[in-house]
Amino acid sequence: MLPFANDYSRGAHPKVLQALVDTNMDAQPGYGQDDYTKRAAQKIKTACQMPDAEVFFISGGTQTNQVVISNLLDGDEGVVAADSGHINFHEAGSIEYTGHKVLTLPGENGKVTAKNLQAYLEAWQADENHGQMVAPGMVYISFATEVGTLYSKQELAALSKVCRTNHLTLFMDGARLGYALMSPENDLSLADIAQYCDVFYIGGTKVGALAGEAVVFTQHNVPKRFTTKIKRQGAMLAKGRLIGVQFDALFTDDLYFQISQHAIDLAMKLRQALKDKGYQFLIDSPTNQQFIVVDNKQLPELKKQVDFSFWENVDSTHTAIRLVTSWSTTEDEVDALIAVL
Amino acid sequence: MLPFANDYSRGAHPKVLQALVDTNMDAQPGYGQDDYTKRAAQKIKTACQMPDAEVFFISGGTQTNQVVISNLLDGDEGVVAADSGHINFHEAGSIEYTGHKVLTLPGENGKVTAKNLQAYLEAWQADENHGQMVAPGMVYISFATEVGTLYSKQELAALSKVCRTNHLTLFMDGARLGYALMSPENDLSLADIAQYCDVFYIGGTKVGALAGEAVVFTQHNVPKRFTTKIKRQGAMLAKGRLIGVQFDALFTDDLYFQISQHAIDLAMKLRQALKDKGYQFLIDSPTNQQFIVVDNKQLPELKKQVDFSFWENVDSTHTAIRLVTSWSTTEDEVDALIAVL
Amino acid sequence: MLPFANDYSRGAHPKVLQALVDTNMDAQPGYGQDDYTKRAAQKIKTACQMPDAEVFFISGGTQTNQVVISNLLDGDEGVVAADSGHINFHEAGSIEYTGHKVLTLPGENGKVTAKNLQAYLEAWQADENHGQMVAPGMVYISFATEVGTLYSKQELAALSKVCRTNHLTLFMDGARLGYALMSPENDLSLADIAQYCDVFYIGGTKVGALAGEAVVFTQHNVPKRFTTKIKRQGAMLAKGRLIGVQFDALFTDDLYFQISQHAIDLAMKLRQALKDKGYQFLIDSPTNQQFIVVDNKQLPELKKQVDFSFWENVDSTHTAIRLVTSWSTTEDEVDALIAVL
Amino acid sequence: MLPFANDYSRGAHPKVLQALVDTNMDAQPGYGQDDYTKRAAQKIKTACQMPDAEVFFISGGTQTNQVVISNLLDGDEGVVAADSGHINFHEAGSIEYTGHKVLTLPGENGKVTAKNLQAYLEAWQADENHGQMVAPGMVYISFATEVGTLYSKQELAALSKVCRTNHLTLFMDGARLGYALMSPENDLSLADIAQYCDVFYIGGTKVGALAGEAVVFTQHNVPKRFTTKIKRQGAMLAKGRLIGVQFDALFTDDLYFQISQHAIDLAMKLRQALKDKGYQFLIDSPTNQQFIVVDNKQLPELKKQVDFSFWENVDSTHTAIRLVTSWSTTEDEVDALIAVL
Repeated sequence: MLPFANDYSRGAHPKVLQALVDTNMDAQPGYGQDDYTKRAAQKIKTACQMPDAEVFFISGGTQTNQVVISNLLDGDEGVVAADSGHINFHEAGSIEYTGHKVLTLPGENGKVTAKNLQAYLEAWQADENHGQMVAPGMVYISFATEVGTLYSKQELAALSKVCRTNHLTLFMDGARLGYALMSPENDLSLADIAQYCDVFYIGGTKVGALAGEAVVFTQHNVPKRFTTKIKRQGAMLAKGRLIGVQFDALFTDDLYFQISQHAIDLAMKLRQALKDKGYQFLIDSPTNQQFIVVDNKQLPELKKQVDFSFWENVDSTHTAIRLVTSWSTTEDEVDALIAVL
Repeated sequence: MLPFANDYSRGAHPKVLQALVDTNMDAQPGYGQDDYTKRAAQKIKTACQMPDAEVFFISGGTQTNQVVISNLLDGDEGVVAADSGHINFHEAGSIEYTGHKVLTLPGENGKVTAKNLQAYLEAWQADENHGQMVAPGMVYISFATEVGTLYSKQELAALSKVCRTNHLTLFMDGARLGYALMSPENDLSLADIAQYCDVFYIGGTKVGALAGEAVVFTQHNVPKRFTTKIKRQGAMLAKGRLIGVQFDALFTDDLYFQISQHAIDLAMKLRQALKDKGYQFLIDSPTNQQFIVVDNKQLPELKKQVDFSFWENVDSTHTAIRLVTSWSTTEDEVDALIAVL
Repeated sequence: MLPFANDYSRGAHPKVLQALVDTNMDAQPGYGQDDYTKRAAQKIKTACQMPDAEVFFISGGTQTNQVVISNLLDGDEGVVAADSGHINFHEAGSIEYTGHKVLTLPGENGKVTAKNLQAYLEAWQADENHGQMVAPGMVYISFATEVGTLYSKQELAALSKVCRTNHLTLFMDGARLGYALMSPENDLSLADIAQYCDVFYIGGTKVGALAGEAVVFTQHNVPKRFTTKIKRQGAMLAKGRLIGVQFDALFTDDLYFQISQHAIDLAMKLRQALKDKGYQFLIDSPTNQQFIVVDNKQLPELKKQVDFSFWENVDSTHTAIRLVTSWSTTEDEVDALIAVL
Repeated sequence: MLPFANDYSRGAHPKVLQALVDTNMDAQPGYGQDDYTKRAAQKIKTACQMPDAEVFFISGGTQTNQVVISNLLDGDEGVVAADSGHINFHEAGSIEYTGHKVLTLPGENGKVTAKNLQAYLEAWQADENHGQMVAPGMVYISFATEVGTLYSKQELAALSKVCRTNHLTLFMDGARLGYALMSPENDLSLADIAQYCDVFYIGGTKVGALAGEAVVFTQHNVPKRFTTKIKRQGAMLAKGRLIGVQFDALFTDDLYFQISQHAIDLAMKLRQALKDKGYQFLIDSPTNQQFIVVDNKQLPELKKQVDFSFWENVDSTHTAIRLVTSWSTTEDEVDALIAVL
């Protein structure tokens, strides 16, 4: 089977795994106090060109979103997201579990726009009943988005400005940050992101690690006693080193960016081939997720040879599917996929 | 000032207040174990023509919605509601506070339709990722709705059927139940509602009481140790008699229905006068809430003489306002209002 | 039956009820924005000799504790209480419901002492694992306590000092504040309490009202958008006037204090009679709750004539019971009770 | 430094790590649907001699306790634990975070006894106010306990009987299950535990894995849609294989038991040496944790050579410390430690 269903079907990048092997018998303190975690945090701050940033490691994306959002919102505040936002759909209500509402805006290609946000805030302010409504306290965006699209530098700057003017925290879910950054259509750097966002995370699980996301606070805005709060929400690994070692490896010699580039190169090759074959795209994505519309008659045969993701029913005879590359995809696999399609 | 802003601006209906006076010095057990509460529950079961129903009293609408919904949903379930549903907008995130998501459907005149619900359930079932999504566990409807509209008997029956086929609890918010039942366009009886809904509440706060809503469970579906759960959520009055006495009075000699009829008669008089004067209606409501569009130039003068509710901005020069009658509205007040408009 | 089971078995003090009657048909804004609520808040600030205090009204004690504690604690903080504290035992886990732990200290006659608190804080600080423990964020005390005892001025001052030195909020549950203040053994004034506590509430439900507690914030420490937060927790009455009118009456012409004095006078008469009859006291209470030990053989006869509260099993042949006076107790009732005992 | 502070200071057992290396590039479904996870579950069921058991994998102990307890308790129920229970002290209020109270019983050598539990349940039942109290719904025990002690077969059987008679779930935290099972003083088998407990977990993090605990439900009592609930609480790893592969290795050729035996052998050697040297034991533990009292004057020198855990202040001149062996401790390290002490 050709593995294109997602970007988390294999283990860790060999260099990341080797780092776990190499450090395995070194006795270290628990709960993220180990040397590897400290070193990884340092390297990430350097990569962000922000020495004052504060970095924490959490084991998965849903958990990271949950811990960050719930601890940065005030009790009666909600988080604004595009209706297609991961926290709104595919995280099983994990934000509501913490007592907070997800306030949805219609996404434009999966994105929250400064204009939509501004209009929403003005309408909320003008509503004489807003004292009985959830107050917007944060804006959640994904980069790349759930549908593989990108914020341009101009778009992110505009969004950041609206957020800061209105005292809303801007939080970026970077589960696929590497694949976004290395897209040929991207004009944002990691340093830009650190400047425009108040908090964001650098995804590891989908970009070469067994597990782990690196949360970066950029505004001296870490919640008080944050590690205790992480623990309280069950999100603290005893062997924090498991994540620290992996991020230390990922941020050594630009490994994170190189393996992301590899996935993007293969995704762009696939995209071109799909275009050449005349496939209709559900949405035009310049990142590692490609969404195409296929005739339902094609599906049984396809399922025999390819692991892909069901995305949505387009009409009674067509289905949108998702094809995903990752750090572990090989050129042979892409070629074989192209041959099958 | 003419009081048309809402249906809770005055105290209690004089007969309800008198009942509080008459019973005041009678020593009774606390926490809803008093004789008046028991008597009120009995009268409500009779009015519902359902001797097996179980009745509980809670002090306000938001609290009732919160207690009922959170205790009938399983952990990972959400409640389906029209996007205009009170729980979705004007209850400050009180459902999310309990850890559950409000799953919205586009309302049709403020209503959840059987067709929309069926389509939603089928799409959810067909989505291969639904294991990572909030599961629908209940449907919340309001009767009358937030925009003053009514479910017909046929509509409610159809909705009930979809719910029962799919093992969803059907819950009716009856904050304005009296005003709905007495509308000339209504064809549902209290007994019908008890048959079609799995749980519903009969609003007191807006229909003649100082505070209090009567929750009716119709399917032997009261959560285990429900009074302890009510207490745990802070919703148990020590002097439960306060609500019991009032509902005992409201369900004596059809008082609840008579005072609702009074409000509806005046609302229909107002509605006709508004039509005669050529006002545009935001929505055509056959109940005690009337929604009209007024020229913004009219507002300053209107505000001097009438307490009304801002509803929404229609365009840059027009505003929708809400005018509400209640058990306490007098014919003189309606006449004066008509004269002003 | 002689009603000595509790202090909430009857309705409202006649003057309080009359105020509800007198104001009934006056149309007023909802949600606590009415004139009566504003007037009551003003009178309470005057009574506290603290013009800068901020006053909110909530319908019951459990709810008040829940709303105040959960909104003043940071996420990972808990509230310190005596093990006999009402929030620890008889509120059905309502604090844990909000996500916070009740951290218990052994009570001394139902009280948290400055010495015990100081020792607890020092031990917590010294524990090298306290980063994985709930942090103390508030101290909860009751006045009068659950067992009818009082904090002296010296004790409260000492406790307040430890709290302020350690940045803990001191919160007093005053469900029975009137009965505490009017005890012959009390040396605290309402103004003292406002000085020493950061937030406290003046109980209405047990002291002459149908429902309602007045929360007083003394340190400009009202949580941001507090009314929205109250609404979100289901604790906002649409007809806030119900509580406002009652507190307005209670704080007119010292009614609150007079009716409390009445209950205390009768309790002291009862206490003396019990002493004269040789009853053993479970605890010596100078307030409106009296706790005595009775032979189990006495119970069946007693139950026929007196409503009292079971308190605890003392040994296999003796039971502690609670006898409570209130604003509504009559001297005849006390005489009859003494005759029965 | 000699690493005796805890049992999670090193990575994974070499065979466990090798399994991660060997399976690394095999593409597998996410979220615990991979072959390794299924195989590990099967092997655990075999080891438990319970083919009908259901097994789930969660990344850490606090998270496992949180997910299991919150999803098996009804809303108003609490979990009974020894006052020394991990969930009561060192998990940062993670149970209260889910809305549930930890109901503490005085531990006897860290254990909940059948007798204490029975007395607690009878007192609760006899308390006429228990409708306003948190209801006991589950009993939480640790094996080995937090102070290294063991339940005998007789003790566990008795506790199980009280739980089943009273419809309480019996849940065992087995973070150190391997070290308990291999103690020379243990008479319980894994199959016994599966028989007596309704749910328990087999700890991986402290027994040879990088992360991961295996939860075993023994009574067809898995919460409905449990994986969605796990996801909602942020506890679902995308690469579930990370835990599955490790447990597959741990339950191949009795590795889990062998490496536990190794740690116990070294702990018993250390214990005997400590006895020979005349150390006072804070508690007599037959497992991998040893608690001794040391003179504070000894501490500075000790800290230079040994990583140990502070346990508690015994008196002004003595401190209790904890020394822990694990699968990774070497005999040389134990000999060196003995030489230092």
